[in-house]
Amino acid sequence: MMTPQQVAEKVARIMWPDDHAVRGLGMEIVAVGPGTATLRMSVRQDMVNGHGNCHGAFIFAVADSTFAYVCNSDNHRAVARGVDINFLAPAHGGDILTASGARRQQGERSGIYDIEVTNQQGTLVALFRGRSVRVKGHFFDPA
Amino acid sequence: MMTPQQVAEKVARIMWPDDHAVRGLGMEIVAVGPGTATLRMSVRQDMVNGHGNCHGAFIFAVADSTFAYVCNSDNHRAVARGVDINFLAPAHGGDILTASGARRQQGERSGIYDIEVTNQQGTLVALFRGRSVRVKGHFFDPA
Amino acid sequence: MMTPQQVAEKVARIMWPDDHAVRGLGMEIVAVGPGTATLRMSVRQDMVNGHGNCHGAFIFAVADSTFAYVCNSDNHRAVARGVDINFLAPAHGGDILTASGARRQQGERSGIYDIEVTNQQGTLVALFRGRSVRVKGHFFDPA
Amino acid sequence: MMTPQQVAEKVARIMWPDDHAVRGLGMEIVAVGPGTATLRMSVRQDMVNGHGNCHGAFIFAVADSTFAYVCNSDNHRAVARGVDINFLAPAHGGDILTASGARRQQGERSGIYDIEVTNQQGTLVALFRGRSVRVKGHFFDPA
Repeated sequence: MMTPQQVAEKVARIMWPDDHAVRGLGMEIVAVGPGTATLRMSVRQDMVNGHGNCHGAFIFAVADSTFAYVCNSDNHRAVARGVDINFLAPAHGGDILTASGARRQQGERSGIYDIEVTNQQGTLVALFRGRSVRVKGHFFDPA
Repeated sequence: MMTPQQVAEKVARIMWPDDHAVRGLGMEIVAVGPGTATLRMSVRQDMVNGHGNCHGAFIFAVADSTFAYVCNSDNHRAVARGVDINFLAPAHGGDILTASGARRQQGERSGIYDIEVTNQQGTLVALFRGRSVRVKGHFFDPA
Repeated sequence: MMTPQQVAEKVARIMWPDDHAVRGLGMEIVAVGPGTATLRMSVRQDMVNGHGNCHGAFIFAVADSTFAYVCNSDNHRAVARGVDINFLAPAHGGDILTASGARRQQGERSGIYDIEVTNQQGTLVALFRGRSVRVKGHFFDPA
Repeated sequence: MMTPQQVAEKVARIMWPDDHAVRGLGMEIVAVGPGTATLRMSVRQDMVNGHGNCHGAFIFAVADSTFAYVCNSDNHRAVARGVDINFLAPAHGGDILTASGARRQQGERSGIYDIEVTNQQGTLVALFRGRSVRVKGHFFDPA
């Protein structure tokens, strides 16, 4: 019998090789747990405009990827249905963004997850509230 | 004296060379106008996971970039404060996503803009409602 | 065989007697149709604060009630899962608020509905985007 | 020199007599503090439909009122710009709803506040994320 922590880690190990886009953006998994996940991403030069400001989509990307690891961490396959995101401070080329997520509520099908993105100085860059819905299936046989 | 259409086109011509990230994602501007914009992006192989599904952040990206062109189209500099996005259908490698945006309301500082993303079959992929706030400055001297 | 318009009207006639709270707030149904509804509410003195400004919850109320009539108009029972609302102009005692709603997307279970609230001068007071989910059951036998 | 706790309490004492609508809905203030507030409301018979389910607007109302007390607690006048709310469990006639709010981020003008609504059994009824904007003025002379 696996612990919830072991389940979360096993799910992450199964998800990761499939996440080409996440790895292509240079993200790394800092930690996963039952209902939690932390990912990190450096803001590369191809993510910024001419004034050095990071495009909001890449701030979204690190939050959304973290959301995926959190909302799947119990081995029920789930997908994003929607997101409310607030951009609170700009990110710049060279910044290291850390996204930390936690489950707020998980019903039989729908779930709400909060992810916050901070930079290397601890400044809050974005608050992201994700809405997930479970689909059929598991990452591995839960028996 | 420029028409609103000429203003929108001139703003877009000024924004575009600076939008390294937008061009790096392979987007193109289909049309801009006063309070409207349409952008297009093909879903590349580096945007999908191992099952061929596009990462939500790239669907967000084409909507968010369109939002930027719309909310700046009157030559008042504005930035995204937040977004509510609903993902309605998956996108896949090779899909061509079109994001069309329109102004819903623009106050003295804050604005609300609706962007919808469809694929090459006309299927609605995402509904994006952006919240902007004006910052100081213009793209060109409005006199 | 009923037309979609007849279905929407029949659903509304069944919902209305049950909607004690909606009637208690003094709302009236202006029109319903397949995927559309319009409701009206006067801002009463018990809805405003000492400066005559309407509490946001009553602006929400007329939009949310309209949402209910729209998302149930096809005789599939549905409930609100969530809402993103933007308040764009204040409402005052004596104002007559009109909320008009339309379906943006309805999947097998989930739906997205846009409701806008205007006052008697046509000023946009609020933009409301509702997320619904269907539950089991119908208002009347659809056979 | 007042402490932040004293400021929050003084603001609440000034706001309360003006909040006719809040008092008309039978709410009471449980606690206020710097960047926090808790309000309570019983679900009355005029808030429910024929099946005893509370109209979502009244769940919204207790959260939105709490939001107002939180986002004004530092004696800068602020108003709601928008809200993302997720309804997680129904409320019924006779339920006692408690809304607890906390500041997530307050910039020079804009702020983000999280309010959660629970019932008397501790079940999470709604998650509410409010967006505020400061307007000119104070509740009392801050000198």
